[in-house]
Amino acid sequence: MSRQFVNQLGHKDAVSDVFIASDKQLRPNRSGNLYLQVELSDRTGAISARMWNASEAVYKSFDNGDYVRVEGTAQLYQGAMQLIATKLARVDPQEVDEDDFTPIAQVEVDKLVVRLGEMLRGMNDPHLQNLAECFLLDESFMTKFTRAPAGIKNHHAYLGGLLQHAISLMDVVQRIGPCYPQINRDLLLIGAFLHDIGKIDELGYDREMVYTDQGQLIGHIVMAVGMLEEKVREAEKLAGEPIPEETVLRIKHMLVSHHGEYQFGSPKLPMTLEAVALCFLDNLDAKINAFDLLMSEDPNVDSPWTHYHPNINRKLYKGKPA
Amino acid sequence: MSRQFVNQLGHKDAVSDVFIASDKQLRPNRSGNLYLQVELSDRTGAISARMWNASEAVYKSFDNGDYVRVEGTAQLYQGAMQLIATKLARVDPQEVDEDDFTPIAQVEVDKLVVRLGEMLRGMNDPHLQNLAECFLLDESFMTKFTRAPAGIKNHHAYLGGLLQHAISLMDVVQRIGPCYPQINRDLLLIGAFLHDIGKIDELGYDREMVYTDQGQLIGHIVMAVGMLEEKVREAEKLAGEPIPEETVLRIKHMLVSHHGEYQFGSPKLPMTLEAVALCFLDNLDAKINAFDLLMSEDPNVDSPWTHYHPNINRKLYKGKPA
Amino acid sequence: MSRQFVNQLGHKDAVSDVFIASDKQLRPNRSGNLYLQVELSDRTGAISARMWNASEAVYKSFDNGDYVRVEGTAQLYQGAMQLIATKLARVDPQEVDEDDFTPIAQVEVDKLVVRLGEMLRGMNDPHLQNLAECFLLDESFMTKFTRAPAGIKNHHAYLGGLLQHAISLMDVVQRIGPCYPQINRDLLLIGAFLHDIGKIDELGYDREMVYTDQGQLIGHIVMAVGMLEEKVREAEKLAGEPIPEETVLRIKHMLVSHHGEYQFGSPKLPMTLEAVALCFLDNLDAKINAFDLLMSEDPNVDSPWTHYHPNINRKLYKGKPA
Amino acid sequence: MSRQFVNQLGHKDAVSDVFIASDKQLRPNRSGNLYLQVELSDRTGAISARMWNASEAVYKSFDNGDYVRVEGTAQLYQGAMQLIATKLARVDPQEVDEDDFTPIAQVEVDKLVVRLGEMLRGMNDPHLQNLAECFLLDESFMTKFTRAPAGIKNHHAYLGGLLQHAISLMDVVQRIGPCYPQINRDLLLIGAFLHDIGKIDELGYDREMVYTDQGQLIGHIVMAVGMLEEKVREAEKLAGEPIPEETVLRIKHMLVSHHGEYQFGSPKLPMTLEAVALCFLDNLDAKINAFDLLMSEDPNVDSPWTHYHPNINRKLYKGKPA
Amino acid sequence: MSRQFVNQLGHKDAVSDVFIASDKQLRPNRSGNLYLQVELSDRTGAISARMWNASEAVYKSFDNGDYVRVEGTAQLYQGAMQLIATKLARVDPQEVDEDDFTPIAQVEVDKLVVRLGEMLRGMNDPHLQNLAECFLLDESFMTKFTRAPAGIKNHHAYLGGLLQHAISLMDVVQRIGPCYPQINRDLLLIGAFLHDIGKIDELGYDREMVYTDQGQLIGHIVMAVGMLEEKVREAEKLAGEPIPEETVLRIKHMLVSHHGEYQFGSPKLPMTLEAVALCFLDNLDAKINAFDLLMSEDPNVDSPWTHYHPNINRKLYKGKPA
Amino acid sequence: MSRQFVNQLGHKDAVSDVFIASDKQLRPNRSGNLYLQVELSDRTGAISARMWNASEAVYKSFDNGDYVRVEGTAQLYQGAMQLIATKLARVDPQEVDEDDFTPIAQVEVDKLVVRLGEMLRGMNDPHLQNLAECFLLDESFMTKFTRAPAGIKNHHAYLGGLLQHAISLMDVVQRIGPCYPQINRDLLLIGAFLHDIGKIDELGYDREMVYTDQGQLIGHIVMAVGMLEEKVREAEKLAGEPIPEETVLRIKHMLVSHHGEYQFGSPKLPMTLEAVALCFLDNLDAKINAFDLLMSEDPNVDSPWTHYHPNINRKLYKGKPA
Repeated sequence: MSRQFVNQLGHKDAVSDVFIASDKQLRPNRSGNLYLQVELSDRTGAISARMWNASEAVYKSFDNGDYVRVEGTAQLYQGAMQLIATKLARVDPQEVDEDDFTPIAQVEVDKLVVRLGEMLRGMNDPHLQNLAECFLLDESFMTKFTRAPAGIKNHHAYLGGLLQHAISLMDVVQRIGPCYPQINRDLLLIGAFLHDIGKIDELGYDREMVYTDQGQLIGHIVMAVGMLEEKVREAEKLAGEPIPEETVLRIKHMLVSHHGEYQFGSPKLPMTLEAVALCFLDNLDAKINAFDLLMSEDPNVDSPWTHYHPNINRKLYKGKPA
Repeated sequence: MSRQFVNQLGHKDAVSDVFIASDKQLRPNRSGNLYLQVELSDRTGAISARMWNASEAVYKSFDNGDYVRVEGTAQLYQGAMQLIATKLARVDPQEVDEDDFTPIAQVEVDKLVVRLGEMLRGMNDPHLQNLAECFLLDESFMTKFTRAPAGIKNHHAYLGGLLQHAISLMDVVQRIGPCYPQINRDLLLIGAFLHDIGKIDELGYDREMVYTDQGQLIGHIVMAVGMLEEKVREAEKLAGEPIPEETVLRIKHMLVSHHGEYQFGSPKLPMTLEAVALCFLDNLDAKINAFDLLMSEDPNVDSPWTHYHPNINRKLYKGKPA
Repeated sequence: MSRQFVNQLGHKDAVSDVFIASDKQLRPNRSGNLYLQVELSDRTGAISARMWNASEAVYKSFDNGDYVRVEGTAQLYQGAMQLIATKLARVDPQEVDEDDFTPIAQVEVDKLVVRLGEMLRGMNDPHLQNLAECFLLDESFMTKFTRAPAGIKNHHAYLGGLLQHAISLMDVVQRIGPCYPQINRDLLLIGAFLHDIGKIDELGYDREMVYTDQGQLIGHIVMAVGMLEEKVREAEKLAGEPIPEETVLRIKHMLVSHHGEYQFGSPKLPMTLEAVALCFLDNLDAKINAFDLLMSEDPNVDSPWTHYHPNINRKLYKGKPA
Repeated sequence: MSRQFVNQLGHKDAVSDVFIASDKQLRPNRSGNLYLQVELSDRTGAISARMWNASEAVYKSFDNGDYVRVEGTAQLYQGAMQLIATKLARVDPQEVDEDDFTPIAQVEVDKLVVRLGEMLRGMNDPHLQNLAECFLLDESFMTKFTRAPAGIKNHHAYLGGLLQHAISLMDVVQRIGPCYPQINRDLLLIGAFLHDIGKIDELGYDREMVYTDQGQLIGHIVMAVGMLEEKVREAEKLAGEPIPEETVLRIKHMLVSHHGEYQFGSPKLPMTLEAVALCFLDNLDAKINAFDLLMSEDPNVDSPWTHYHPNINRKLYKGKPA
Repeated sequence: MSRQFVNQLGHKDAVSDVFIASDKQLRPNRSGNLYLQVELSDRTGAISARMWNASEAVYKSFDNGDYVRVEGTAQLYQGAMQLIATKLARVDPQEVDEDDFTPIAQVEVDKLVVRLGEMLRGMNDPHLQNLAECFLLDESFMTKFTRAPAGIKNHHAYLGGLLQHAISLMDVVQRIGPCYPQINRDLLLIGAFLHDIGKIDELGYDREMVYTDQGQLIGHIVMAVGMLEEKVREAEKLAGEPIPEETVLRIKHMLVSHHGEYQFGSPKLPMTLEAVALCFLDNLDAKINAFDLLMSEDPNVDSPWTHYHPNINRKLYKGKPA
Repeated sequence: MSRQFVNQLGHKDAVSDVFIASDKQLRPNRSGNLYLQVELSDRTGAISARMWNASEAVYKSFDNGDYVRVEGTAQLYQGAMQLIATKLARVDPQEVDEDDFTPIAQVEVDKLVVRLGEMLRGMNDPHLQNLAECFLLDESFMTKFTRAPAGIKNHHAYLGGLLQHAISLMDVVQRIGPCYPQINRDLLLIGAFLHDIGKIDELGYDREMVYTDQGQLIGHIVMAVGMLEEKVREAEKLAGEPIPEETVLRIKHMLVSHHGEYQFGSPKLPMTLEAVALCFLDNLDAKINAFDLLMSEDPNVDSPWTHYHPNINRKLYKGKPA
């Protein structure tokens, strides 16, 4: 029998399968009785689970990030699917197929990395090629970069999401390059690659996805500039000659301005064509990914509309079946 | 001897060539003496000219929209080039080469129109093909659509600019289509074609480019919906069957929401993937065109920066020569 | 014995009367037991009802929009009155007095329609009279116009509310006409009549009040312009002569700008005296109606203050009994 | 021969008439030569005048606020009419007809004051009647109230404008009273009377119209509350009984909230029906007066549009001649 | 045995102690059973308590503001500590130690009052000294001023908070005086003393802390100006000579502008150096007090971060134990 | 005879003295004649000068940043003092007294540097002492830090202004330290020292004060973080032990958040007590300096008000002479 994926669970479905646990809490209800609340996820999404009348023993029998086998029933509650668990037990990681729990299978990640290398090595500017190589050769960087999500909520918020977002953006850049000859394609391409690298340390994603302390206090925009400066030093040492100041400045400016407006935490507005293009294309890729997910995961399956999302100040129109 | 184009005039250059006149005014200076002020343009841009101690006779010797031969001297004044005219006389349209005065030569317009037809006929949805055909067959519409600018100021603000903007946007849509399979490419393509059609009547561009009364009181967004409704009726009559209501609704929604935010006069926020994509890509195409122009026309040739532009709240970085 | 109206129900009152059902839902509570939730309304307002331990049989025994007889108890819960139902059964529409369920009795609606005709026929401008007549003669239009609410929430949010709002506004226009001779009273009067007509299709109000798909995607402002254009064509055919372009433009402009500010979804700011006046008077009539309702329906009867309403960013002062 | 009023001066008209001088300045031009600049006004408006090569003697020969006879020529300069003066001499106030210099003739003011008394004495609430009487009996107050403008720029910005604005607003209140029975008409009427009384000391208007120091540092809203408190004490002493606290509170609240939004310097948002109504009606009366003036005084007589007014972020549509 | 203070209660602690009751409510739960909800406080903070299956007898056995002895258990519920009460009975005020219930012990208040007098009498300007004396001598004023909180929520929201905030601010003013010789230290000092005095009547704090009606309708800023005007009259009578108008104006301006921006309900922006300084220092003192409290009272003791506070749009960083 | 300082020049004063030239431009007037425009400054301020009918020879006879002897006349033009020059010649730097041209004399700078060292060495945290020492020992840094202005316009916009602003802020921090024991005084002190160090490279101030390219594209906030990181590495090498990560994080956070709000280009909001305090005190020091200057330099000497300053959206009240 095949696996029950989170995004396939329907109202009143009996559930018996393995998930990753996170954010476990032992909480009293209004009357003082304890219950266990825990997030369960696989590669298709996450669902909130509750186990009534739970003991501290159950609570302590597993850690956040563990694989757990859960038995219970799915049920729609206040517009969202939740799981009423009756049994929950830790499972040996050896027994599970990791690909069920990573939105992008390893083989897919490997392909994306190959693609990344091809695109970066396809740049014409030898300075940028050299700089890109320093990132590609940095194993610690690449491990994080291929594993990090692009956010906690919002767009590409899953392991591998950052890589997928960067590749998608770079692909778009390559395709529309001929439309805008006044844009330096190489600069925009490396900007698409590097614009969000600060997120590899802004976020923690070892077991559960969280903001790190420095992520919250400093932010990925400022952190990315430091990472770039370090790699520029390496690249110049490697090449034995400096990267033109102008080139470095233009890359930094893309990093610093890619949120596009002050109100979104951008310390600078885009002032070069590449920075302007990066800002709109980043927005395009992020919003299409995010809105598509909001539509496909909307629990309100009978309606052509998603429910109202306050952070984007609107409902989305899923449309009527043809 | 070849023509002196507006964008080639340098400080102290002697000028003797033909331009289109617009916005002529006979004005007194502080001391009460009359001078003539007039905008002169060719396909590369426009320049403000003044003729000191001008008489009413000169003022009445030509109309806005006429070709005039001007003699005088170019000079940099308060950061902008202007022309001090000493002679100015009407010229017979027969004597001029029209292509010097249209940013896009007729042969180029013809190519763009062919391109437009190809792209629209390449759509898979027969309803949309049929609808598009009704626009293409409407001579009065096409005459305006291929001649109109995309604005008075800002982006693509020249004859043929609207067509060029639409084609450029449609080209981008076709290229990035494969990156976003969740987007209905045909819908987005026809959205790119139609989003600004209201501008053919929002603007007047017969002799000079102005806002029409209905353009200012109603606006191209609302006007475009009326044009679409009319063509939908035609297309349905032609095909003998209705276009699905859902399809028409989704196109209208793209028209109505493509400014993206209430503060930019958008009565609705984008609520479908196609509307979201159209909004960002329209912005990309418009801003790249506009900023590129601000940079290339910046009179401050010695500085890597343009002067400050209040409407975009920033200077732009033109960069240093390599 | 007289009817128990919704707005007269007090804490712990036993209830046994007929209401209109809407938005019925069969929902599990935290423990997984099903309960029925349903909105009950009559002409004085709406109340949320719950029936514990409800079966699917009960849920299926009536439809949204049906009349149902309900037995149970009213109770104040978290600042709002709700009804705990113990019995609920469908009732034959023949047995009920429709006037108990429409905020405005039919006889009252009839009077308002007469009033509408009188005011419109009292205009001096024959073009406007003719145009108005085309609306009055359109039975399908009038059926919707006299039945539609003016909104889902906010002001005049009940069947007949749109008509009542229009009449109230037209009444104000007639009264203050002499104060502002520089305003064209006829134009303002027809603007008051037509400004919200888009709502007859923006909203659905057959059984329950909802936004239609086109209402959400296009909006009543843009929709109203299309309705007006159609009627202008009819009126011109009827009269055998065109309505002056200027007149049509000024009416359209009132429709398009009556929300007054971009942030409220107005694609244009008011630029004529009539548009300015319409905007302020519409706001006056809407806000007085809305705030008056918030005060009179505030469940917090012991306090001189209503509770805080986030959408208007304030509490309202009901005052102290004299 | 009849007087040449400011609003009748056309381009190139020879001028020889008497005006009130204000804001006189002796200024050097770029080359260091002195010229005299001075505002000239009569009851129809104001015009800026310049006298080239003026001496200090001329400058000292009159004071701001004096009547001066001016000879010269009117001329359109940068979209505004100005006057090039060749002669300028002080005139004895005895020789002029004061009514030429006050927008509202004294006989008209007298009528308005009678009207004010009638409306206030027509209130049903004896407390409010008594309070109003204390204002009407205060000669010093009434002198200022009947003479003050309602602003320096914007609406009703002329001597007598405050009175005219108050009466106009009170008239509207009386007319629409029957439309809104839930509003306390007496409260709203006295609110219309008192809402701007702080302006009698916020502005100075003895010779020229200026903001006073306390006007700028404290503002008419806060100042009005102090005036009201003083009159409440007087009224209570006079009547020998207190005005109900609730009544005073509601009047104060109208004064304090009538600007409607924080961004317009309103320390409170309107929270009673009377305050809400006052805010919209005040806005209506002020904007109709202001926009009407912008249209009728627009120097651009050939265009259906006024020029762009940055403070209202729009042009206004004057329309085409029928 | 020593007292159990609110801020020391931990999850599952048995509680048996005396608190002040406020905001008592008898409410039905979803199933219609009644429970009692009441706020309990002492000088260290407040906690929400619930007593299940409460009778009306219990509800009526005490009033808001009474001392009550409570038995029950503390428990963490949805991120906040609450108290499940099993017994609750009124206690004679004689039996309690008042200092346990006032955040600032009386002896501490007395010291602050002495400090206040010293600082005010240390001013060099005799007019200001005299004016200050009139406030200090007004017993009714001083009783309120030393007892009032500085707010309901936010900063210094406890009895005595207003006094503490004023003294803290005055202390800062005295310390940094020498850094800014261009600021009139006496003016700034009396501004620091008076800026929030309107709060003594804007708030009620007899038994529970609430906004008064006039507090909500008029606001402490406008109310403070009236209080100042009254004391100026007294001081002038006392001294037999007027306080310079300029001085009074500058104090009023500080009161009127100390919120610094229109959006915070400030009718005027700071336009003198003293008003500018007061605004920033008031903000500093208020925010340090408020944020410090948010951190120290954050229930999330294991995290270096407080939870997200929507009103300040951020989390706060408490930091990691050294 | 003593020097004529810029801030002492009055209308019609004959001028013959030495100034620093900057921003020289040779410009045609409307009629095409050339004139020279140049900024002249000394330590008390700057004045714009014009020399009519200037030749290219004069223009080339000096460079921006040179000392020039100027003869001519001061004159008030459009509310600002300007200088009409008749003669202008380069002067040997040897002949001038440098202290006349630096707002802070060298001896004063030396004192401030001593003061800086004392305050930093007075910190209790050895890590912070060590870090500070690395900055103090870096000659290249200190040369720039003691010479840089704190801005181009706005506050402390003169050579030495950055140092003066830092010292003033640190002084305030030390004085109010005892008022807020919950604030880490050492952290706040080093934050006050470092918060604006990015300005040493954001601005160029060798001859004239300008924004550098990286200053405009990256900004001092992001640049400061890079400087800090470098010095942290040095300090850790020097001390042979790491500075606690928490400490570095808290300093970085102060740099990154000190603009306080997103709209002012702050990528993060202040989330620690030290960051909150730094933001308000920085604002206090900057605004008092800036507003004080606007008042003392206001050319409108007869008025108690400065003219309107659009960037701060207000006039300032200078007050009346006692």
